[in-house]
Amino acid sequence: MKISRLKIHPIAIADPPLRGSYGLHAPFALRTVIELESDSGFTGIAESYGGDGPIAAFEAVRGIVEGADPFRLAELSRRIGTRLDPAGTAGVPGGTSQTYLVPGENPLDLHNRTFAAIEIACLDLIGKAVGKPVCDLIGGRVRDRVQFSAYLFYKHAGGGGIAGEAYPDEYGEIMDPAAVVRSAKQMIAQYGFKEIKLKGGVLPPDDEIAAIRALRHEFGPMVPLRIDPNCAWSVDTSVHVGLSLDEELDGGGYLEDPCPGLDGMGEVRRRLVAKNVDTPLASNVAVTNFADVPRARDLDAVQIVLSDPHYWGGLRAVQTLSNICEVLKMGLSMHSNSHLGVSLMAMTHCAAASPNLTYACDTHYPWQVEKDEIVEGGRVRFVDGAVLIPDKPGLGVSLDYDQLARGRERYQKIPFRKRDDTAEMRKHVDPNWERILPRW
Amino acid sequence: MKISRLKIHPIAIADPPLRGSYGLHAPFALRTVIELESDSGFTGIAESYGGDGPIAAFEAVRGIVEGADPFRLAELSRRIGTRLDPAGTAGVPGGTSQTYLVPGENPLDLHNRTFAAIEIACLDLIGKAVGKPVCDLIGGRVRDRVQFSAYLFYKHAGGGGIAGEAYPDEYGEIMDPAAVVRSAKQMIAQYGFKEIKLKGGVLPPDDEIAAIRALRHEFGPMVPLRIDPNCAWSVDTSVHVGLSLDEELDGGGYLEDPCPGLDGMGEVRRRLVAKNVDTPLASNVAVTNFADVPRARDLDAVQIVLSDPHYWGGLRAVQTLSNICEVLKMGLSMHSNSHLGVSLMAMTHCAAASPNLTYACDTHYPWQVEKDEIVEGGRVRFVDGAVLIPDKPGLGVSLDYDQLARGRERYQKIPFRKRDDTAEMRKHVDPNWERILPRW
Repeated sequence: MKISRLKIHPIAIADPPLRGSYGLHAPFALRTVIELESDSGFTGIAESYGGDGPIAAFEAVRGIVEGADPFRLAELSRRIGTRLDPAGTAGVPGGTSQTYLVPGENPLDLHNRTFAAIEIACLDLIGKAVGKPVCDLIGGRVRDRVQFSAYLFYKHAGGGGIAGEAYPDEYGEIMDPAAVVRSAKQMIAQYGFKEIKLKGGVLPPDDEIAAIRALRHEFGPMVPLRIDPNCAWSVDTSVHVGLSLDEELDGGGYLEDPCPGLDGMGEVRRRLVAKNVDTPLASNVAVTNFADVPRARDLDAVQIVLSDPHYWGGLRAVQTLSNICEVLKMGLSMHSNSHLGVSLMAMTHCAAASPNLTYACDTHYPWQVEKDEIVEGGRVRFVDGAVLIPDKPGLGVSLDYDQLARGRERYQKIPFRKRDDTAEMRKHVDPNWERILPRW
Repeated sequence: MKISRLKIHPIAIADPPLRGSYGLHAPFALRTVIELESDSGFTGIAESYGGDGPIAAFEAVRGIVEGADPFRLAELSRRIGTRLDPAGTAGVPGGTSQTYLVPGENPLDLHNRTFAAIEIACLDLIGKAVGKPVCDLIGGRVRDRVQFSAYLFYKHAGGGGIAGEAYPDEYGEIMDPAAVVRSAKQMIAQYGFKEIKLKGGVLPPDDEIAAIRALRHEFGPMVPLRIDPNCAWSVDTSVHVGLSLDEELDGGGYLEDPCPGLDGMGEVRRRLVAKNVDTPLASNVAVTNFADVPRARDLDAVQIVLSDPHYWGGLRAVQTLSNICEVLKMGLSMHSNSHLGVSLMAMTHCAAASPNLTYACDTHYPWQVEKDEIVEGGRVRFVDGAVLIPDKPGLGVSLDYDQLARGRERYQKIPFRKRDDTAEMRKHVDPNWERILPRW
């Protein structure tokens, strides 16, 4: 079996005006769907970051991918790495840090991001050819269902989308503790999530402390809580928040990327431990490739790595990360970006085959809507906060080509070609806004 | 596809009177060949340790294996672990140390050893079913040919074997530097190896230093040299040997398990580095499971882990180890025991799919003979010291059932049911022999 053709589909999906320390989400998120057609008649699919950069990278590796054997993934990874990261600069500690860059726009993990989509599509293709789910092609599932958490955001009013398409504003404005609690109840009622993360770094820290306390008051100690300000806080502020939320983040909670960099996080950890606060620190921006892991462990700066098959280099890379974290006695969970059902299923298979997965995974999926979904049969269902491994080969989902065509049309109609949360912030909130780290 | 039947074939193969710190090899080595028949008509094979203990373990997991899906390997591993290591005692640092036990006779890695054979046979089965070589089922090869090294032993005269079967004594007695060099030349002429390891811990250290110097004199600095006394030396003696062989072990050489335990090896390393000797230390007895790796790294006691799919838990476990060693900046090579062509091919596929493999692998294969080989077409060929990945599905070798039957008959005829190098030493060399660590 050889890959005969790589098809690249740029699409756009509505995204509500979510806030974070990077700024404001644009009204559309960009995604790229790829198809790998094989000479055996099967087609594998994957979903990745969108816009000009990611598309150019896929075009750049077309000659490597077409004609390749989908089983020979290490060779594909090596060749894609040589093409997109010829200097090998990404393999150094901090080399792919996302502290200052949004995921999908970091030039230094371009090869990992591009290979990841190719790997996922190859595994889908192989799964369809041999009649096995993807998780069982990479060592076999350790769980049949993967738990996700309610991923709450501060947001302005509006459902996202422009250019003549109407999108509902499911969650309304969320800018205070009461609205945060309301959105959590709404999301949990719909999806059954059992754990909650709040994207912070938006309001002054004491306001976000109040939001976490309101969530704890509403849901009680059985629902683990996390907060992720994406490096918006100084070391002192991070310690203040950690001490203030000692009880609220206990029992399966964590504090994610409170401040920029591993040295700072190491200091936060030392100061919290000195006060008998053992809330673990998680990261998806300071630990973004394997070279970062030993330093994170040696500094005790990060106790939980937030993996992501999309930028760590695919499903097997995350499995490896899971094993490394287990050996180094670090926890593991999974980061997410705005995505549709193909990415959700790739994350689910990845998590199902990663033994050391110690926390429910993140997903932005509740912020997207049925109208934009590209998988046949509509949006993937959650059961009690979990996605089940389907009893189908490959990823277990297929493309709805009409919906895909609509996503392509939408992409053509809009002006956005890269994610730029700063530009959106200046356009809609504050013309002089700068991302300042730490802000507080 | 389900596994319909597990077939267990105990076999014996002639083994010459090789010496090591464990004592003396018996005239026969014991192996177990397993077959996994599937309901789809394909059969997967593997080769593992032999004798009563390993066979009882395979029998104990028959009910888990028969009826299982060969793709669901994580589940098989978990269930075999629960059956054979219910207390989970093996997952602790030092829990599976082989310092005092010969490989294959350590009760604490029984589950890993048993699962490894099942995994390899499942991968062979899957490879045959989907028409792909094993290395391309587990992420894809990073090399098409795997280099092995000339693995020299001190030995008494004799070719091994008893009970009416005549075996040639290919290498004669090897008990001094000249014979060591002669055996190396003979082995290299036949197999084309480009690197040399000497199993030491047999003669007083200065005699073994002399043997390494004679090898260096004969082969020059382009042929890397290693010595493995299997913990026979004290820390002081290890440092003495390290300092004495600074030049000879330079350029791709290493000092393997000079003394017992990670603390001792850490001290050897510190004292050598203090004298500007950077000969790396390798281990296959102090680092035998994942829990040992962080301590070995933190103590800087081991710079090269000698993996072995047979007791680390299979091919994917060694891939994981390879990745962990890469992240922790440790080297990796591969240990071997007396084995036939099925194990050799499993090791070759494993090495072909392990990116971070920094030294030629060990193999005892030259010490076994055509007459005992169980793979169709006779012994696996080496080309310039390497085994090539065959352009065939699965492991790329099939069983010669007549030869397998001869191996089974041989097993029935002989009294040996476990490897016991101490007993052989007492029988043939010194009735009062004890394994003393350190001896020198």
